[in-house]
Order: sequence, then C-alpha cells, then structure tokens
Amino acid sequence: MSTTNLAVIPGDGIGPEVTAEALKVLEVAAPVKFEQTRYDLGAERYLATGEVLPESVLAEIKEQDAILLGAVGGKPNDPNLPPGILERGLLLKLRFELDHYVNLRPSRLFPGATSPLSQAVLDKGEIDFVVVREGTEGLYTGNGGAMRVGTPHEVATETSVNTAYGVERVVRDAFARAQARPRKKLTLVHKTNVLVNAGSLWWRITQQVAEEFPDVTVDYLHIDAVMIFLATDPSRFDVIVTDNIFGDIITDLAAAITGGIGLAASGNINSSREFPSMFEPVHGSAPDIAGQQKADPTAAILSGALLLEHLGHLEAAAAIDAAVLADLSERGTSPRTTSEVGDAIAARVAG
Amino acid sequence: MSTTNLAVIPGDGIGPEVTAEALKVLEVAAPVKFEQTRYDLGAERYLATGEVLPESVLAEIKEQDAILLGAVGGKPNDPNLPPGILERGLLLKLRFELDHYVNLRPSRLFPGATSPLSQAVLDKGEIDFVVVREGTEGLYTGNGGAMRVGTPHEVATETSVNTAYGVERVVRDAFARAQARPRKKLTLVHKTNVLVNAGSLWWRITQQVAEEFPDVTVDYLHIDAVMIFLATDPSRFDVIVTDNIFGDIITDLAAAITGGIGLAASGNINSSREFPSMFEPVHGSAPDIAGQQKADPTAAILSGALLLEHLGHLEAAAAIDAAVLADLSERGTSPRTTSEVGDAIAARVAG
Ligand SMILES: CC(C)[C@H](C(=O)O)[C@@H](O)C(=O)O
Ligand SMILES: CC(C)[C@H](C(=O)O)[C@@H](O)C(=O)O
Repeated sequence: MSTTNLAVIPGDGIGPEVTAEALKVLEVAAPVKFEQTRYDLGAERYLATGEVLPESVLAEIKEQDAILLGAVGGKPNDPNLPPGILERGLLLKLRFELDHYVNLRPSRLFPGATSPLSQAVLDKGEIDFVVVREGTEGLYTGNGGAMRVGTPHEVATETSVNTAYGVERVVRDAFARAQARPRKKLTLVHKTNVLVNAGSLWWRITQQVAEEFPDVTVDYLHIDAVMIFLATDPSRFDVIVTDNIFGDIITDLAAAITGGIGLAASGNINSSREFPSMFEPVHGSAPDIAGQQKADPTAAILSGALLLEHLGHLEAAAAIDAAVLADLSERGTSPRTTSEVGDAIAARVAG
Repeated sequence: MSTTNLAVIPGDGIGPEVTAEALKVLEVAAPVKFEQTRYDLGAERYLATGEVLPESVLAEIKEQDAILLGAVGGKPNDPNLPPGILERGLLLKLRFELDHYVNLRPSRLFPGATSPLSQAVLDKGEIDFVVVREGTEGLYTGNGGAMRVGTPHEVATETSVNTAYGVERVVRDAFARAQARPRKKLTLVHKTNVLVNAGSLWWRITQQVAEEFPDVTVDYLHIDAVMIFLATDPSRFDVIVTDNIFGDIITDLAAAITGGIGLAASGNINSSREFPSMFEPVHGSAPDIAGQQKADPTAAILSGALLLEHLGHLEAAAAIDAAVLADLSERGTSPRTTSEVGDAIAARVAG
C-alpha cells in the first residue's frame, strides 16, 4: 500500500470532532495509507500564542499530498480575536499560498435532507449541481485601500482583479467537470452588463474554451438572475463557473436550498497539482455545541470523499458517497452522536 | 388641486402596458393633478435613432417632480442592440445623474402570491422587509479597466468605490425607515471579513449613525449568511441596508421568495430631493408577451404607490396598497388582461 502524506488541521469548536469521523471513514475507504501530520492552527493557537500561520508551518504543509481541515473560528465577538484574522490569515492565506484556484462545491439534495423549498419547486427535477468558484482572484486579492479614514471624507476601495491566466484555468477546469457529468452543461455566472471589464474577460474566455469542449452546452446568467433560478428551479443547473465573490454567495444559497451547510462539502483545489489541495466542510466551528458530540460529521466525511476523488481514488470516493447516501436515507428521528454517525458510515463503507 | 410634473418613460415590451395601468391607478388615488410628459426612451428609440439618453432629454427630466418608468430592453440577443447599452446608458445613467442614492425595494409575501419556499419556512413568520440598496457607488461606478485585452496576459479590474459621504446618507435613510416601522430593526449586510476597507467604512458609519436612532436594533450579517436566512427564515428581516452589488443580488432573491418579480416594486430615490426620484417595477420588458395584455401590472401599480409615498401623499399610497392587497387576495384562477387588473385596482381605490 502506498503512503499519502496528509496534513490534518482539526481547528476549533466542532472541527476536531467532525475531522475525527472524516479520518475514520477515510481510513476505511482509501486504498492507500495516510501518514498524518496534525497542525493545531486556528483560534485556540492564535489566542495562546498570537500565531495564525507561521511561515515554517506553511512550508511544511506545502510538502504534503493533501490537507483535511475541520473548521476554524473562536467564540463570536471574542475581544481577543480580531474580526477576520483567521479568515484572512489562515483560510484565505492557504487558498492563495497553495494556489487553490478551483473552489469546488457540489450541491445535491440528499435523500432525507429537508430543503426550505416547496414541493412544487422540488418536483421540477433533481437538484444536483456543482459550483466551480474561482479561488485566487477577484475581490479576494486584498487590492483595496482607504484614505482619510474615520473622517467625513473617507474613501474606501476594493478592487476585483481578474487575469486571463486565472480565468482561463478555472473555466477550463469547469468545462472538464461538465464534460464528465451526464448533462454536460455549463453556466457562466457574472454581471457582464455592469462589470464590463471583468465581465468581458470571463465571457470571452468562456467562449474560447468552449471550442475545446464542443459536447458541453454553455449558457450565461447574471448573478441576480441566478438568485431567482436557485429559488424557483435549481434543477436547471449542472456546473456553474463564476468568480470568487459570486461563488461565495451562490454556494451558501446552494447549501441552504439543499438542506443546510451541515451537509455541504468543499474542496480548495490546485488542479495543476503544484501544491496540495485542501478539503473542508462548508460549515463553521459552531463553538456553542463543541465537545458535545452533537455535530453532524457528514459534510466533513463528504469532504474526505472529494479528497479521495482529487487524489484519483475514484472508487473509494464513490464508496463513501454511497455510504453517506444510504445513511442519510435511513436516518431516523432519534439523534446520534457525532461518532455514531461516523461509525455507521464507516461500517457501510467497510460493508 | 396642485400640479405635479411627472416624467413618464413607458419603455419597451410590456412597459407601456403596465405603465398605463399604473397611471390609471395613480390618477384615481392621488390628491394632486399629474402633468405628464412622455419620453420614448428605450430600445425602440435606440434602434431607430441611435440615441439612448440625449443630454437635452436628461436636462428636461431633471426638472420634473418625479419619474415613472415601465421597463426598457429589446429582444434578447438583438444584434443591433449592444449588450448593456440600455442598462448603462439609460438606467444606471439616470441613477447616477439624478443621484438616486437610495434604491428602495420592499419585499412582502402578498396574500395569494406563491412563494417557492416551503410551508415550514413560511410558518416561521410574516415576510415583510425592505431593502435599502445604495445606488450611486460601489462596483457600479464604472471604475474599472483592462489591459492587454484579448491576449493571454489580459488583466481586467473593477473597483468598488465607497465614500463616507455616500455611505452615511444611505445608512441614515435606512435607519429612518427602520424607525418608522413597527419592528424597528436594521441589518447591515456586507462582507467585512474579506472586504476590509469598504467593510470597515460601512461598519463604522452604521455604528455612528446608530447613536442617532437609539430605538432601532442593529445587527450585521455577511452577504453569504444572508443567502441562508433568506432561504430558511426571511421573517427575521425588517430593514436591510447594503451596498450596490449586494443589494442587487439580495433584492432578486427577495423578489423570488415573495412570489416573483411580477409583484416587486422599486424606487430610485434621491432622498435629499435635489433631483426627481424614479419609480419602476423590478421586472423587465418581457418582449415575448408584449402587446398581448398578458402582463401583470401589479408591480408597476405598487411602484406608483411608492411614488406617492415619496411625494408625501401617504394616505393615497396606503389606499393603493390596500387595493392591491384586496385584489391579490381575491384573484381567482381565470386570467385577466393587463387593463382588467388595472381597472379592478383603480375601482377599489375609488370605491
Ligand atoms: C470565511 C470566508 C473568508 C470564506 C469566503 O468568503 O470565501 C467563506 O465564506 C467561504 O465561503 O469559504
Ligand atoms: C439592469 C441592471 C443594470 C440593474 C442593476 O444591476 O442594478 C438591475 O439588475 C436592477 O436591479 O435594477
């Protein structure tokens, strides 16, 4: 059995609990041995040491094959935790340093999951789409500034930076994913009627790359129109490709309509494989229920499946997927502990 | 009876039909006489003359007391109509030239309207909130550019520009609206954890202005969290204040969850009253059903009510509102023509 080096960042709150279950399932499913290195990054370490992501730790992580992250974030409004410090100093820093240009977020309405949408909307068709969100450009580049701060004359700017290089690689990745799916449909989402510069670039590159994928159907929607379709007919979507901020917004709505972020998995992927990719549940650290074995580890477990898929272990990934599906279909109403859910899914995978 | 000078821009597609009904109801309801001047702006005029918004027309419109707009926009993919030309050259141009810094979009789930949300979500409480979207700053200022266009080295930028002046006036307007509502609650929406410069400005000014409105409860949500709440518990919102692009995104989702943009009214308001404000339904020109008396004029009629409210005719505005509510509650399943709906609502207002 070959060995895969896995960086594990359990994080804060419920992070360690759900990560433990994801690892439990990964170990049963994977055809490789994971050599784990744990990194205690997150709110706790910051509060204890003032460190968010030391350069030496980043250098070590860069040498791993993949990263599994639980969730980071301290107690809401902790005066010792400056707002945004973990988001920018850790989560976004990893995305940028490891060039995670594909932020992958599958959205499926799982059996047994409760959607906030009406039966009439759900009857329109199955909800099963993937959002390919660009992860290294746009409004997330920190290209902003402010002058006369705190005065009545303050001006504050945020610049969305988009490059042909950056757009093309993520659009190509999205086309390849669309081509591999039964419906082979790609929807570009932007706001070309207002953001003419960035919009033209995204539009033009999508048209260009489309020529390499003649079997993929392409359409375009403004971000505001996407809101309407996600609420009234989400079955129309197959693969969505969009920029960093629109992707952030779309994926939370997508998670909500498919039963909540408790089930949403995600991958921060460097498709060119120069750096390790990172997989994490979309949910946060939920400090209010931490340590009580109340958290649902399903999103973390599904993130493990995305990790296996990325590493090329397609059968193992499919086995986790199937086990989660079966578990969800048969979930009763009596609550299980975090590790009971992990055990049940691991048992199905071992099956 | 005093006279109010009203610019009427019926526009394209179903615009003229719904505008006719809005005027019909306005004339019955208003305690003033409207002196109407019609402007044939829109796709048709552009296609015939190449003109979008001539300076002389703009100058005339600036002298009016208020503007009622139907909808503008030609046939989809008309090769003679460059994409975005009417949006930027007419709609956004009017917002900027007339300093419409308050883009007001009420969202109510009307009786008889069909929401795409499940009964379980609707049972959480009444959906009745207002979005105050900033209309003259942010990503809509056209502060972007591109270099090496069309090459693999293209860089395209879009800059969100936010000023203390611009943020403060719209935030203050939103607080005043919150104070006038029973729940007196204001939610600031931004993405402060990523957009630190603009986010700090919005946050700081909201805290400052809050001191003038001690009876208003203030909270804050990231734009992505708003997506989740709009899908799972929209009753939590009362007044939302946010920037131009987030407001664009939120209001389309808000319209969708309250039964569709067929009922959504909006005002582009210059609260300082230096320029006339403009009122319009949120829907587009729907060229596919134009001229067939199939369009629902309700959103245009409700936009007329917002116009009256802005001009200070609160009772007349409330009368239209009540008439629309009654009409919606008693709508059967047999379709009525556009003018039948207008007649019915006008009769209730008169009655
Ligand atoms: C925590 C935050 C910086 C992050 C983002 O905006 O990308 C989160 O919302 C996400 O979607 O992963
Ligand atoms: C047509 C477009 C420019 C406009 C906007 O983005 O503001 C529209 O979507 C709206 O919400 O009024």
